[in-house]
Amino acid sequence: MPRTPRVNRLRFYDCKTAPSPRRVRIFVAEKGIDIETVQVDLGSGEQFAHEFREINPDCVVPALQLDDGSCLSEVIAICHYLEAQQPDPSLLGASDEERARILMWNVKVEQQGLLAVADAFRNAAKGLKNHAATGPVSYVQIPELAERGRERVAQFFARMDEQLSNNEFIAGDRFSIADITALVAVDFAARIKLSMPEDAAHLRSWYESVSIRPSAAA
Amino acid sequence: MPRTPRVNRLRFYDCKTAPSPRRVRIFVAEKGIDIETVQVDLGSGEQFAHEFREINPDCVVPALQLDDGSCLSEVIAICHYLEAQQPDPSLLGASDEERARILMWNVKVEQQGLLAVADAFRNAAKGLKNHAATGPVSYVQIPELAERGRERVAQFFARMDEQLSNNEFIAGDRFSIADITALVAVDFAARIKLSMPEDAAHLRSWYESVSIRPSAAA
Repeated sequence: MPRTPRVNRLRFYDCKTAPSPRRVRIFVAEKGIDIETVQVDLGSGEQFAHEFREINPDCVVPALQLDDGSCLSEVIAICHYLEAQQPDPSLLGASDEERARILMWNVKVEQQGLLAVADAFRNAAKGLKNHAATGPVSYVQIPELAERGRERVAQFFARMDEQLSNNEFIAGDRFSIADITALVAVDFAARIKLSMPEDAAHLRSWYESVSIRPSAAA
Repeated sequence: MPRTPRVNRLRFYDCKTAPSPRRVRIFVAEKGIDIETVQVDLGSGEQFAHEFREINPDCVVPALQLDDGSCLSEVIAICHYLEAQQPDPSLLGASDEERARILMWNVKVEQQGLLAVADAFRNAAKGLKNHAATGPVSYVQIPELAERGRERVAQFFARMDEQLSNNEFIAGDRFSIADITALVAVDFAARIKLSMPEDAAHLRSWYESVSIRPSAAA
């Protein structure tokens, strides 16, 4: 087995069952790096405990603690930092234009896909009646927002199918963080019984190719 | 008057009254660059017209057309591209760690601030009854989401006040895109009669300092 480079003095706060930290797990697996990982049990509310609030006052994973004890949160920020530590393979783009285009697609997939699934999931899940938004503040569920989320996911599938009719990957001809975000969104959608339409041939073919990458098991 | 460098062959699609393109306008003003600008009249639905759909099929501004005719959308992607064209003054950070930290704060301000105001605004504005989400698809307003948005804006003000109690600017000791996003969020909130609490002294002091910068007039 090839040795993987260990990025020392970093600590990754993860939750094995949650979609957002999975984006970082896949990113890390694609890079072939090895980071000390701590599981945060979102089910029992460990993200709200004093100990984790000291790490990330916004009470969300993923979070990445740096060697000076400070903490990075938000997926794109964590991935930007990891890309700088381990540039190969590039998942954020090589040229300035490619980097901008990948950032753009990553935002589109987040807004149109991942956040739509999250609206649908969080505003309907039995265990989240008073936690319909992430973070430390309690918000009650809004059933109409769950429904809007489901409609938006259908639009997202159509939009991605169109984009993938002309491109091998979401942001062009290279696998990138935008594909990771989209893969996580599609798998998250399956948990609320939303699946890619039968006739979305380009999306389905892309999904098949990205989900057999070893990193997808992360 | 000093001459401003003109970034040739770029075309910026703007809307003078809208908050998201204002983020790019302020960014451009801070850089002191001069870009050909086209106004898109969101009030009359020009973003849904065939001509603009060819530029950005997601029907939102800001958008930046590059010299090959292709288009970038999403604020962070556009700003990343412009920062590469004109690095000084840096608004996205100098070191890898600073860049990651600025990206992180920009996302926090977007999610906790700007999107919260947008939820409150779009789900209550008389002119947006069937356009409660940006983009080409019609979604009806959800009054409960407008209310949740208003509650989240109050939390955002408190969170920023706390962050600014230890930092001159949102992401640390340098004016950055995170400050631009926060300034735009605070001004957007005022349009729905939400203002910074009287006792949010750090936030108010920061607001005063950033809103007198010449770029804030953009």
